[in-house]
Amino acid sequence: MSDLIRVAVLGASGRMGAQTCAAVEAADGLQLVARLGRGDAPGAGTLAGADVAVDFTVPSVTEANVHALLDAGVHAVVGTTGWDDASRGRVTEHLGRVNAERAAAGLGGLGVLIAPNFGLSAVLAMTFAAKAARYFESAEVVELHHPNKVDAPSGTARHTAAAIARARAEAGLGPSPDATESGWEARGADVDGVRVHAVRLRGLVAHEEILFGNEGEQLVIRQDSFDRASFMPGVVLAVRSVGSRPGLTVGLEHVLDLS
Amino acid sequence: MSDLIRVAVLGASGRMGAQTCAAVEAADGLQLVARLGRGDAPGAGTLAGADVAVDFTVPSVTEANVHALLDAGVHAVVGTTGWDDASRGRVTEHLGRVNAERAAAGLGGLGVLIAPNFGLSAVLAMTFAAKAARYFESAEVVELHHPNKVDAPSGTARHTAAAIARARAEAGLGPSPDATESGWEARGADVDGVRVHAVRLRGLVAHEEILFGNEGEQLVIRQDSFDRASFMPGVVLAVRSVGSRPGLTVGLEHVLDLS
Amino acid sequence: MSDLIRVAVLGASGRMGAQTCAAVEAADGLQLVARLGRGDAPGAGTLAGADVAVDFTVPSVTEANVHALLDAGVHAVVGTTGWDDASRGRVTEHLGRVNAERAAAGLGGLGVLIAPNFGLSAVLAMTFAAKAARYFESAEVVELHHPNKVDAPSGTARHTAAAIARARAEAGLGPSPDATESGWEARGADVDGVRVHAVRLRGLVAHEEILFGNEGEQLVIRQDSFDRASFMPGVVLAVRSVGSRPGLTVGLEHVLDLS
Amino acid sequence: MSDLIRVAVLGASGRMGAQTCAAVEAADGLQLVARLGRGDAPGAGTLAGADVAVDFTVPSVTEANVHALLDAGVHAVVGTTGWDDASRGRVTEHLGRVNAERAAAGLGGLGVLIAPNFGLSAVLAMTFAAKAARYFESAEVVELHHPNKVDAPSGTARHTAAAIARARAEAGLGPSPDATESGWEARGADVDGVRVHAVRLRGLVAHEEILFGNEGEQLVIRQDSFDRASFMPGVVLAVRSVGSRPGLTVGLEHVLDLS
Repeated sequence: MSDLIRVAVLGASGRMGAQTCAAVEAADGLQLVARLGRGDAPGAGTLAGADVAVDFTVPSVTEANVHALLDAGVHAVVGTTGWDDASRGRVTEHLGRVNAERAAAGLGGLGVLIAPNFGLSAVLAMTFAAKAARYFESAEVVELHHPNKVDAPSGTARHTAAAIARARAEAGLGPSPDATESGWEARGADVDGVRVHAVRLRGLVAHEEILFGNEGEQLVIRQDSFDRASFMPGVVLAVRSVGSRPGLTVGLEHVLDLS
Repeated sequence: MSDLIRVAVLGASGRMGAQTCAAVEAADGLQLVARLGRGDAPGAGTLAGADVAVDFTVPSVTEANVHALLDAGVHAVVGTTGWDDASRGRVTEHLGRVNAERAAAGLGGLGVLIAPNFGLSAVLAMTFAAKAARYFESAEVVELHHPNKVDAPSGTARHTAAAIARARAEAGLGPSPDATESGWEARGADVDGVRVHAVRLRGLVAHEEILFGNEGEQLVIRQDSFDRASFMPGVVLAVRSVGSRPGLTVGLEHVLDLS
Repeated sequence: MSDLIRVAVLGASGRMGAQTCAAVEAADGLQLVARLGRGDAPGAGTLAGADVAVDFTVPSVTEANVHALLDAGVHAVVGTTGWDDASRGRVTEHLGRVNAERAAAGLGGLGVLIAPNFGLSAVLAMTFAAKAARYFESAEVVELHHPNKVDAPSGTARHTAAAIARARAEAGLGPSPDATESGWEARGADVDGVRVHAVRLRGLVAHEEILFGNEGEQLVIRQDSFDRASFMPGVVLAVRSVGSRPGLTVGLEHVLDLS
Repeated sequence: MSDLIRVAVLGASGRMGAQTCAAVEAADGLQLVARLGRGDAPGAGTLAGADVAVDFTVPSVTEANVHALLDAGVHAVVGTTGWDDASRGRVTEHLGRVNAERAAAGLGGLGVLIAPNFGLSAVLAMTFAAKAARYFESAEVVELHHPNKVDAPSGTARHTAAAIARARAEAGLGPSPDATESGWEARGADVDGVRVHAVRLRGLVAHEEILFGNEGEQLVIRQDSFDRASFMPGVVLAVRSVGSRPGLTVGLEHVLDLS
């Protein structure tokens, strides 16, 4: 990969794809070389020499796209949802094969980065929460969203609570103290022993607040996503990082430098 | 009542009573004239000429105390819990009788002020929430307490949600918008159609956050009670006000000047 | 005014004017009858029988527009800035004249409502802050805006602080306690004795947080304006109310029912 | 050091020292073996075989205490303020000498841990802020304290802002965007280019809020210290960790596991 990273965008006419095109064009060191729309199959012809491709398409085609990108020798950044253990496993297997061939040919390995969330504030909030969890007696999560959301609690809040629960278990902490005898319906959902509350309010977009408490102190990590534009710094960071991370990476947090 | 208000404290050796004695002694225009402990029956002898008595005793004796105070011609401020419609009705009836006699004798009427909460921030938060409610499409309540609390949601949060629900109904508003299809256990308790969430966290004391939302805007009213000391400005205000409010008043908000 | 309120919008092609047109069309009981653009003088011909006109034009023409509306017998709601004591005085004088004539003719008086801020959350925050101020030892204001704002602190924060200062003075409160000896540059601007802090942060729009403190308790009133859309409920409320408030009214808070 | 850590407390009759004694006695695996008060010189006789000593004395004696502890072969945890480069340098030099002798004798090295702040929430907030700083266009700090504090902004807020500034510089970020033309006095103190605001409010203790913003998103890390009790988990953690960190360590963050 040269110093200038050539980027193709798959799903370029969708909302996220269009924003990605604009973000790539505005970013130092990135060059937008191809916009692929609905009918455009990713291949040598359509990818126009791209080093990295960003996939914001739909669940039904995203896996096939990634395999085509690997065949074309292009790193992939994937924001499309719908991935599961099986589809990730097939990509890992494909990466193993193609990167062995590349190694034999003296080429660096290809990388695939699948990120459920490109929001830096959301990813950092989750990461910090997992790190803080072992140091506090109590932990709870409150997520707040617009009232058109159909599921509760949000996926981000579930992941955060699960990560907190794992960190507490590793540190030998039991459940957060709770003397509640009546009114459990006000105490939120139980995600691996961590209470998660979902607020729905007109005017909000997507927000998460993680509360930790010890005797005499509190730590609150709050994250607000006001606009889809907030995902672009994370997409650009992923595009810049994927070339130096051969193999499959799941989660933007792995390309953040938090040392 | 002279310019200097003479105050007796019932339950003076309890935590709230002791703080009340100190607060009365520190307040301009108030004079502490009597401290009544567990065995002291309120009467002409023990009340030492008090104009106002503050009752921080226990549910089993507070009503009898108030009747004794009325018989002694003393205004009453009551912070003890345990009052219900029946006990309040008997006090109203007693007040009617005694104030008729006092009017006939050319005396001003006696007042009784029963306050479930003397925290100015809590009472103001509740009052403002009720006033704001009609102007917002969405409203939810989050209360946060120490983890030793046995009931959820808190009485204050219940009262707040009920007041919001009343105001919404009066303004012809339906329920807050909510597209939730799954995960209702994360959506809090339903208090008259208003969602109430209860967080329990070591390090906290008693806190309430009321959230209102419209398209593009949010109003949040938050109240923190860190310490029992916070009740004293409300107690002093009640002592100063009760003499000019003949009859029964329930709730500190009625003696606040919010015009 | 019939049950259906006929509305004209001046400055209909501007951002606020266009949103107002859409909001009027969507509101029950309101009918959009005229959109006036830059070259359209408000008069019998262009106003198309409007009962109420909303002015979102520019400072240089807004006063002339209001006088023309009064001559045409139309109530006015004004969101344009640039009004001062002199221009408000001339409108008051004109209202006096025209409403005397209307009274003689058996007609109800015309109303003009000038609002510096139509955001319900902003107006309520300011109003509640003024009411709460007398009950707290300490008060400070923090406003937060996008980093392109050229002035600090915001006009809303200045008004809020001034209202708090007035309420404290009326209640006989001195300045908030403050032992600061060094580092005054961190203590914010002094607005009539109330400290006001201005935060500038990419991603934010317009937000205000008002903090009140007593021994052991805190009351926080926070207001978030995420989007210009948030002004529309206030504009619609003003349109509905102006017909029943003859004379000049300055500030949306006067048409809110906060009893 | 055996499995049970024997602990001496210097300054045991002060507020922090007394709390430390209680916390040590309550902690699993720690045994309180000595309480040294004002006239007690730390030495073989008074330290009663302690493995670790905690110093909560006064600036005028804390350095001499540490040297005496090193001479006695005891690890030191220091919460007393007043350390500067010179006094830390002398301790480093002493540690070098004594640990060389110990190594020659086949003994593990001694450790000294000086912590300006034992509050886990404060230390974590500062640490996370430094890690997050490189990922956001804007950063500001708001600290809130009781009104008896004489200096502004707080040392913790200064340290936080300085750490943010360092991280931004390392990442090649310029100053946060700021179009302010008038009203700079509301924009807080400038600490290495990061704006820091200090709120003083009756009822508060010690709190810090760190705000980060990008287009369309915000990350807020907030920390509340309600009570001195909150320092004890950090003190206990330091006591448990100091024996495995030979040499001088400054800052509790270095003994936290944040990998």
